[in-house]
Order: sequence, then C-alpha cells, then structure tokens
Amino acid sequence: MKAKLKSIEGSIVAPQGFRSAGVFCDIKRLGTGKGSNKGMKRDLALIVSKVPAAVAGLFTTNQICAAPVKVCAKRVKNGKAQAIVVNSGNANACTGRQGMKDAIEMTQFAAAHIHMEEEVVLVASTGRIGVNMPMENIYNGIEEVAQLLGNTPGHADETAEAIMTSDTRPKKIAVEFKLGGKAVRIGGICKGAGMIQPGMSPTGARPASLPQGLHATMLCFITTDTAIESKALQGALTEAVANSFNRITVDGDMSTNDTVLVLANGLARNPKLGARSAEMKTFQAALNHVTLELARMIVRDGEGVHRVVTVRVAGAKTIQDADAAARAVANSALVKTSWHGGDPNWGRIIDALGYSAATVVEDLVDIGYSAPGSRKIIYSLKRGQPTKATFKELCAAAAPNEFDLHIDLNLGKASAIMYAADLTEAYVDYNKGDVTDPATLGG
Amino acid sequence: MKAKLKSIEGSIVAPQGFRSAGVFCDIKRLGTGKGSNKGMKRDLALIVSKVPAAVAGLFTTNQICAAPVKVCAKRVKNGKAQAIVVNSGNANACTGRQGMKDAIEMTQFAAAHIHMEEEVVLVASTGRIGVNMPMENIYNGIEEVAQLLGNTPGHADETAEAIMTSDTRPKKIAVEFKLGGKAVRIGGICKGAGMIQPGMSPTGARPASLPQGLHATMLCFITTDTAIESKALQGALTEAVANSFNRITVDGDMSTNDTVLVLANGLARNPKLGARSAEMKTFQAALNHVTLELARMIVRDGEGVHRVVTVRVAGAKTIQDADAAARAVANSALVKTSWHGGDPNWGRIIDALGYSAATVVEDLVDIGYSAPGSRKIIYSLKRGQPTKATFKELCAAAAPNEFDLHIDLNLGKASAIMYAADLTEAYVDYNKGDVTDPATLGG
Repeated sequence: MKAKLKSIEGSIVAPQGFRSAGVFCDIKRLGTGKGSNKGMKRDLALIVSKVPAAVAGLFTTNQICAAPVKVCAKRVKNGKAQAIVVNSGNANACTGRQGMKDAIEMTQFAAAHIHMEEEVVLVASTGRIGVNMPMENIYNGIEEVAQLLGNTPGHADETAEAIMTSDTRPKKIAVEFKLGGKAVRIGGICKGAGMIQPGMSPTGARPASLPQGLHATMLCFITTDTAIESKALQGALTEAVANSFNRITVDGDMSTNDTVLVLANGLARNPKLGARSAEMKTFQAALNHVTLELARMIVRDGEGVHRVVTVRVAGAKTIQDADAAARAVANSALVKTSWHGGDPNWGRIIDALGYSAATVVEDLVDIGYSAPGSRKIIYSLKRGQPTKATFKELCAAAAPNEFDLHIDLNLGKASAIMYAADLTEAYVDYNKGDVTDPATLGG
Repeated sequence: MKAKLKSIEGSIVAPQGFRSAGVFCDIKRLGTGKGSNKGMKRDLALIVSKVPAAVAGLFTTNQICAAPVKVCAKRVKNGKAQAIVVNSGNANACTGRQGMKDAIEMTQFAAAHIHMEEEVVLVASTGRIGVNMPMENIYNGIEEVAQLLGNTPGHADETAEAIMTSDTRPKKIAVEFKLGGKAVRIGGICKGAGMIQPGMSPTGARPASLPQGLHATMLCFITTDTAIESKALQGALTEAVANSFNRITVDGDMSTNDTVLVLANGLARNPKLGARSAEMKTFQAALNHVTLELARMIVRDGEGVHRVVTVRVAGAKTIQDADAAARAVANSALVKTSWHGGDPNWGRIIDALGYSAATVVEDLVDIGYSAPGSRKIIYSLKRGQPTKATFKELCAAAAPNEFDLHIDLNLGKASAIMYAADLTEAYVDYNKGDVTDPATLGG
C-alpha cells in the first residue's frame, strides 16, 4: 500500500509539538567566541518534543564508535526520549573516557536547560576524530540554543545547517498523510558528504549481512506526531534504513558516528500503531519515502560529486550476491572515475562484478543505462556481448547528472540497489586538505 | 637462509638461453601500420627459451577472466613451456569464443615462426576490455618480432616496453646467485599502473582467503636458468607471489588479466631442485626478492601515484584479520587522500580498521610512522590515545615519498603487509579520460 503523501514545509518542526534551534558556538575553535555567531555556520542544535516520545535509532556498525553513539544506543533502548542535542565540528570519537564523560555531560547540561531528565536527552556529534570536545563552547552553545528554543516556534533550517560539515547545503523534508482519519506528519533532516557508506544496526552490533565499509558521518533526525509503539517504530525504522541509508555510498568508508534517530510524540492522536496494525504499511511507506529522499540528498551532495548513479543489480543467485555485486560496482575507483568522465565503460563494470563475492557468469551479464526510474534501457552489453548501441548513444546515456545503471546477472531472482556517486578530482582535492592549514583537514 | 644476490643487467635475457624482442604493430589501431614503428611504443613481444623449460604460473581469480589467461592456465599445467607471446593495447577479455580462438591463434602463429609446438607457447594480453583482437596487426607483429629474435642476442628492454600500458617506465630486474656451486640467474619484467590489487592463484580458482578487489592488469614474466622441477617451481612462485604481487594495491580493482609466469630452462646445470632440496630456500629467497622488487615498482609507478606507503599490521588475532585490516586501510579513499595531502590523519586509519572484517579494540590500537624498513617509529596513537608527538613531527613522518605505516592491534600475533599508494587528482584525471577522444579511455 502506497501512502498518499503531501509534501509540506517545516521539516522536523512540521509535526505537532516539536521545536528546534541551532547556534554557532565555535566548536572548531576558529577563534571567534560566544555571541559572535553572525555569519558563521551554526554548529550546535537542539531538537525538542513537547511531550515524551517513542524513540527508535540505528547506529554505525563500525567497531570504532564514537562516545555519543554509545550513549545514544543505550538510551534508545528505553523506548522513550524527548530531545536531541547535536553538534558538528567534532565527532567526539576516539576520545576515551573523557569523551564518554563529555557526551553524557552534553545531555545533562541540555536536560537542565530544557527541564527534563537526562535519560530522555539523546546526543549526536560529527566532525574531526580524536579531539576532545571543547566543553566551554558546548555549554555556551547549549545555553544559547535553549533560550532561542523558548522564544520561537521553531528554527528547523538553523538545525539543518548546524549539523552540516562538508555538506554544501542543508537537507530536509516533511510529508503529511492520513492514519486512522487523522493527519499525521513526518519531518526529517540529515547531513553527509564524505565517509559515507553507512551500515547501521539497532544496537551497533555487526550482523554478517551488513556492508564492510563508510566516512563524513551521516546523521539523520526524524520527527513525527504519529502515535506508535516504540517497538513498532524501531521495526519500521530498521526496514526504512535498510532500503535507504544502508544503500548509499559516496566513498565506501563507514563512519564512527553514523546515527539515525526518530522521535514519535503521538500528538496527531491517531489510533496508536503497533507492529501488527493494519495501518503500519501506510506509516512504513511514508517513512521509507522520507529516509530514501534524505539518503539520496546525501549522495547528490557528496564530497566533490558530479554524477549520481543508481546501481540496480537484478538476477543474482542470492540477496547477498546482489548486494556484493552492487557494492563492488558502486565502490570501484575505476568505475567511479569512468562515471565522472561520462565514459560508458562496461569493461570496468564487468571487471568489478567478476571480483565481487557474487557468483557471476560472463556470458550471462547484461549491462544498460536508463533515465532515473525509467524502464527504457539502452544496453551496452547483453549476455556478455557488446550490443549494437553506438558509442555515441551510450555516451548520451551516461552523460546526465543522474542515471540508472542496470545490471542483470541472469542467474536468479535476487536484486539490490546502491545509490552511488562518481569519484572526482574535487573529492581528492577536498580530502587531501592542506597540512599548513589544519582547518582544511577533514574528519 | 638469505641468498647472496648480485644485481646484474639484462633482466629476462640475463639467464642463459633466453632471447626476447618487442615491436610496434599498432594493436590500438592508431592508424599507423607495419613498418612505421619508429618512435611508437612497442606493443607486442616474444620471450623464448633455447630449450624447453619448466613452467609455473599464477592467474587472476577474477571470475571474468580473459581468453589468454584461460589458455595459459591450461598449458601451464603441463609443467613445460618454451615461449611467451604477449601484447599490450588489447586485453582480449570479454571477447567470447572469438577471443579464445584469437588467443590460441596467437600461440599457433608464434609457434610456427619460432619452430615449436603450440602447446609450449604461452600467451598474455593487457589493454582495453571487450574489443576483438586486431589479428592482422598481431600476425604482422609476430612475424616481425620472430625475425628480430633470430638476428640479435636479446632485446629485453624492448619487451619491457612492449608490455607497458599506463606505466610511465619499464620495470625490470635480474640477479645472480649460487646453487650447488653453479652461478644461476633470475630475470624479470612486469607492468602494472591501474586496476591493481591482484589476487592470483595457480588455477585462477578463488580460495576464500584471496582478496576481493584489482585493475590495469599486472603482468610479470620471470626467466631463470635454474634447473628445477616444475612442481617445486610452482610452489616457489605461489609463495613468492603471496608475499609480493598479491600484497599490492593501487586502486583496489582486480583485473581480468593478471598473470605471472616463470620459465626455468635448467641451462645453469645446477643439481636439479625439487620441493625438498636443501637449496630450495636459497632459490625461494632469490625469487621472493625478484617478485617483491617488481611488485613495488608497480606500486611506485601506479596511475597518478605520488606517495607509496607500506602498511604493516601486527598484533592481529588471525592472519585473516591482519590481511583484512591492512587491505581496509590500504584501499580507504579517505586514508589514501590523506596520504596524498601528507596529512598524518590517524582518525581515518582507525575508522578503516573499525569497519574492516578484523577484530579491533579501540583502546589497544597503536599507529605510527617510520622510514621504509626502519624500526624507529614515531607514534601518533598508542593504545587508542594520541601521543605527545606534535602535528609538525607527524607531518614530517608522513611527508616522504615513501614511508611505512605501522599498525599494532595488540590482540594477537598475526601480521600482514600491504604495499599501497595514495589517491591523487592525477589518478582521477587519467581514468576519467575524455569521451571525445576514445584513445584516452582506459581499460
């Protein structure tokens, strides 16, 4: 069942009962301090629900995992939360005991300023790894943002800005749909750019089927006024992320901080959803839409990205094979540079398929191109043989800023999708940084 | 036992009884034809032993594997060979039945011109995938090179040139040492540049422990006048390659054509080596030296490579863990761009360790730098904590064109090495090519 979704404004403050704000508190310690936030990109934000909300979360499966991820994953298990404090500029990763102390203090300090128990305050961070949090700046920022929050209906755009790192633009969405006759809303913001190939699980533990591989951290915060049990919410989020954030790659590096959180405060007063509710499918479809749109925004705004390619593998023997084949193509340096050049090079694609863990038979492979979402495919390869499509035709198919790459292994019925990006000189230039100017050095 | 090796000139024609030559026959069909080879890079070569030789080989484990690899792998099993015909400019990969026919015809045509049975002639190709071999050009080239071969003592440099693709320089080596009182010699040439992370096995079948990942094909041809049984030779080559070519990566892409061949014609008249001969260790050490030197030349001359980094992982729980950890670091886009920038970024390194398949505990990880082969390590991280080394000191350690990166997981006793390279704008620029000039488009 496909939900009838209406796009609306407001992102995370579109659902009833959510407020949000963002400030600049100089977390990167660029030298400007409190009160001097005019014109500087915000770097700290609060998202608050008027009432306690059901909560669900997914977290990086990287074994090296940041302090805020550890704090968050534990509190999400309670099933209830009411606020999120988040910063950019410092990942609070590989910061040992001090990092854990700092992450917890961020929630304590925020909780005190918004009059809640610390246990219902979640925390997320993104930025440089291995640097202790500048807690004075954080305290100033939390104080300021808590004040802002009290005075105004909601600053979702400031929050979307505050979580950005190498992102060139904020990423946000909100939709409205009906559940049990009530209008409900889901809003979301996210950030990404580099160190992007998330493989998240509810506990951060690594199932065998998750990708090995991500880096800049992806963060995503979703709010909804839907009334839903936290277990049903966790199930829905897990399914949504499996088909969105866990299917994207910018550079194949998995971050220490990847986090997706959803707060559902129930203020829409729909009949409360449980895992077996008939209307779960409607909610799931809406959540899938929100996460997929946000995930694709991350790929489009990936570091140095010029072209976005949806890799669609079909006909694999198993789901694991389909996934391995899609990831091998999506992360191949040679395939990605050919995308950058607009070169419809099928040799590199079939090469990547051949070294993937998937079973591949050369004489069966089809490779083709289409416009995004279209089934009108121009094939370069059919059953392992070059087609009669001309080089010019294939170049035209690989020229748009976004296109779909169709791969059929013709061995079975399993399929997988990866939302991928090209590899450009701009990516290299950005990430090599300049050691004479440490401010240019990435996470 | 370390062999006493003397470096000598002559590469593959240094051992007794080997001849070699290379010509230009316009395999890329740039429009110039036979006889017009002045100033053009050679693209076809023959290597010939005066007498039948013991042979051993290792081949790509990519499931998409070129016709010459299939032909070669089969003939190597006979244990005897006498000549190799090799071309650049066309990989003869993904060329179906015609490709198999062409590969076999290359050996037949060469065999006829050098008066041998086709079964003792091996074949290797590198270049663009998916294009049929220009057999007229090949025939002309073989005719010409066979004539050259008859007239002169040996053109090893021409052969080293003929196998180059995106390589900027030929790669060659020769050594002399003593076996049973006799002076024996080993010579070798190779090529690489891109699509480089070989995972080769004797049959091309994929053992679970081989890397998933390589691309431009690596080819390596080794000659020796050592008297050795072919089984012992295969064993020695397998061990040598496991610690050299199978430990390098330029871009993490595994090629369809990776091939290493060794011919041992016995003309040095040393007591014939078998697997259990006391002197096998001496031979093994010499072969290890030859393959490792050649393998490192490939990394140094990798596409766009500015910095070469030897990733040394120690203290892993298992060999598989050590290998997975080393490969994750060696292939991480973010780690490789930081090497390019001379940025001693340990955050990206520990991030890659964390998402690798290896067991990693944050609080135990050491990361440090040294000059190549030195044990004088400057640590950036000790037991998960940043050391007191200054940013300036660490930058100096990461600044040389070549350095060693030391990673100790402090969890066990297993170790692994990867010979890796940075990721540069030049790599991207080269591999994106220019679709308006198909001659610029890579394999």
